[in-house]
Amino acid sequence: MAGQHFPVTRLEGVSREQFMQHLYPQRKPLVLEGIDLGPCTSKWTVDYLSQVGGTKEVKIHVAAVAQMDFISKNFVYRTLPFDQLVQRAAEEKHKEFFVSEDEKYYLRSLGEDPRKVMDNLLIQVTGKKRVVLFSPRDAQYLYLKGTKSEVLNIDNPDLAKYPLFSKARRYECSLEAGDVLFIPALWFHNVISEEFGVGVNIFWKHLPSECYDKTDTYGNKDPTAASRAVQILDRALKTLAELPEEYRDFYARRMVLHIQDKAYSKNSE
Amino acid sequence: MAGQHFPVTRLEGVSREQFMQHLYPQRKPLVLEGIDLGPCTSKWTVDYLSQVGGTKEVKIHVAAVAQMDFISKNFVYRTLPFDQLVQRAAEEKHKEFFVSEDEKYYLRSLGEDPRKVMDNLLIQVTGKKRVVLFSPRDAQYLYLKGTKSEVLNIDNPDLAKYPLFSKARRYECSLEAGDVLFIPALWFHNVISEEFGVGVNIFWKHLPSECYDKTDTYGNKDPTAASRAVQILDRALKTLAELPEEYRDFYARRMVLHIQDKAYSKNSE
Repeated sequence: MAGQHFPVTRLEGVSREQFMQHLYPQRKPLVLEGIDLGPCTSKWTVDYLSQVGGTKEVKIHVAAVAQMDFISKNFVYRTLPFDQLVQRAAEEKHKEFFVSEDEKYYLRSLGEDPRKVMDNLLIQVTGKKRVVLFSPRDAQYLYLKGTKSEVLNIDNPDLAKYPLFSKARRYECSLEAGDVLFIPALWFHNVISEEFGVGVNIFWKHLPSECYDKTDTYGNKDPTAASRAVQILDRALKTLAELPEEYRDFYARRMVLHIQDKAYSKNSE
Repeated sequence: MAGQHFPVTRLEGVSREQFMQHLYPQRKPLVLEGIDLGPCTSKWTVDYLSQVGGTKEVKIHVAAVAQMDFISKNFVYRTLPFDQLVQRAAEEKHKEFFVSEDEKYYLRSLGEDPRKVMDNLLIQVTGKKRVVLFSPRDAQYLYLKGTKSEVLNIDNPDLAKYPLFSKARRYECSLEAGDVLFIPALWFHNVISEEFGVGVNIFWKHLPSECYDKTDTYGNKDPTAASRAVQILDRALKTLAELPEEYRDFYARRMVLHIQDKAYSKNSE
């Protein structure tokens, strides 16, 4: 049973005002085409980047496959001078390599996973990416481990292991140089780079600033109201643990129905 | 897709000690045959009951169909002298009736639904009943409204309206005069009287007495730990309500996963 597939809406020539007033409030992924990104889309070639970036050492992710797995960590961390990284990342086969001659490289310039509760514009400056997104509404079909899905091979998922995954609605787009993808906070995304390229992510906080943990520089943490809610829930579960197993199980299920009734959005989109 | 069906285990000649030591702790429904119930099984005929019960007025449920619906209330309350009730209940067709000539009567001598959190022995003194039971583990497939299932027509359920009902495991038994059915606390049951008869229910509290609300004469209320847990959960949901809808929905789903992980029984039986 294949899940439902949707293309991500693409729009050309959207003004800042149109985006902010009409598109942004819809909280749906969106590819913006033809945004003026300045000269970077043509200028940021392999040679230019090697030259400008120089020999500063950078820490990179190196994996034998294109799809990096942030749960099982199928990659290793290595260090290369920036110019060598760029040269290698642009090659199909590597003469010099860490794990295999067709290993892949990924350079991320910020902390781990800085997207959890922030809105994001992914600016594809050069190269191509395929991005698949899943709505936070479908979180229960994604087999989350923390905030990440265990289902990595989304094109050929193990449905015996992940039967509900087929219910997750899949939003897909291909990004070419110059495209800008809006990823609303909480949307899951799965990215494959189809060729060497540079992406720039702009994250910003969507909620009023008092909603965020003050120590949360990168927007990595849950909004404070959500953290508090989970802490309070833990107290409720501690109370429930006073009962024998069959009662605990029964009332836990009643609590789930209560949450679904009171806090789930009626709109499933 | 039909759900799984199981017969309720029947055991003959079980002693009090065997029941208490080996069977009761299993928390599964069970039909006990051949229990010495004294002379009532032969003595409590229609004539005898009419005579002994006399003309004291009793409040009864009257419905046009055999299956009373305690959610939509497809019955009316009426009053009859006890002896007339017994006579009428034993007739196939009624000359005198309230709603229809084949209306059904039900006399319950205690408050509404005194079975919620108490263990129960249903003693079938005379007549026949068919009883279908569902485990509290399958509560999520029963479309509960409060503590009752909306699915009344369990033999021919509307699966378009109640698709998950087909997942509920159905335990069934027929009770004849002299049979005693053990219904553990929290088990859902659906009863059809197949002929006029008298059932006596013995309820008793299974949990240590401090687990129950002190004002709860009939065992109608949730154990205090469960009520407190739901109250605390409501505080968590109030906190979550500070967030915009999409965040609230997302973190509510995370809370559900958390409850399932922490408080659901790993044993699904």
